[in-house]
Amino acid sequence: MKQDDPLQRLKTIEGHLRGVIRMLEEDAYCIDVIRQIQAVEAALNKVSGLILEQHLNSCVITAVKGEDPAERQRVLKEILEVFETAAKV
Amino acid sequence: MKQDDPLQRLKTIEGHLRGVIRMLEEDAYCIDVIRQIQAVEAALNKVSGLILEQHLNSCVITAVKGEDPAERQRVLKEILEVFETAAKV
Amino acid sequence: MKQDDPLQRLKTIEGHLRGVIRMLEEDAYCIDVIRQIQAVEAALNKVSGLILEQHLNSCVITAVKGEDPAERQRVLKEILEVFETAAKV
Amino acid sequence: MKQDDPLQRLKTIEGHLRGVIRMLEEDAYCIDVIRQIQAVEAALNKVSGLILEQHLNSCVITAVKGEDPAERQRVLKEILEVFETAAKV
Repeated sequence: MKQDDPLQRLKTIEGHLRGVIRMLEEDAYCIDVIRQIQAVEAALNKVSGLILEQHLNSCVITAVKGEDPAERQRVLKEILEVFETAAKV
Repeated sequence: MKQDDPLQRLKTIEGHLRGVIRMLEEDAYCIDVIRQIQAVEAALNKVSGLILEQHLNSCVITAVKGEDPAERQRVLKEILEVFETAAKV
Repeated sequence: MKQDDPLQRLKTIEGHLRGVIRMLEEDAYCIDVIRQIQAVEAALNKVSGLILEQHLNSCVITAVKGEDPAERQRVLKEILEVFETAAKV
Repeated sequence: MKQDDPLQRLKTIEGHLRGVIRMLEEDAYCIDVIRQIQAVEAALNKVSGLILEQHLNSCVITAVKGEDPAERQRVLKEILEVFETAAKV
């Protein structure tokens, strides 16, 4: 089980999120809950980075080297879109 | 069950996150997974906002009106901290 | 001139931004320009935090302790709004 | 002068930032200043997106199609880095 495995990380984050739900159910202090939600978000960002890394090193190389200009444009546009959303979320 | 109930929203987000885990397990397209992770983060931001709203309208008012300057400082400092983290996550 | 003076920091950031403009004018490498823009944003976040800190320790205390419930609500709502925007920008 | 010209946009943002400096000098309301800083950041994000778009459609295609695996790795790694920073700033 690799440290860098996105699936394993997401499962850990799911456990983290269940912990946050339990905090809310037990009326934990608001700020502590917000801090844990922010920690979950930071962990999700890390996973997105790992998945993007895999994507760049596989699909993106294939599409850019490929013969289909429309497919190449599509793949590059998707990267731009997730970047723009990342800058906002 | 209110639309604005943070607990209910977090449970919905947990279901969303489980869906993302399933996508990864079924080798969904990388960019689609990243988009769903970003959607989960946007939903978590919304929950943080709702919890902060409750906090401002209860604990913060109590602490600021209260007689204990150290407690007031603590509560205001916490708000600053979650703001600074929000600007980063 | 204090390290924590938002005005001084903003002036420094303005100089930083002028440097980024110069980079673009001189056709600097795209990624280097993006990195500098991200550095400017991180510096702006820091200034927002400093201004919010001053605001919490002055206007917010005054409004929350004050006799006007509408004014108190307005001030607390504003904090929520800048938090929500911070979580997005 | 194109709407999508990053240089022109950055110059407009510089004017915006000078306006924010003037607000601080004239003791504008804290929250209004923070809102303007957040607007500057949103505009900077937009510029980063435009520059990344140009970069993907030029350097990235060249590097990925090129014969140098180290150069290709470097270019893909840079995209990952600006994505990860974007998710944080």
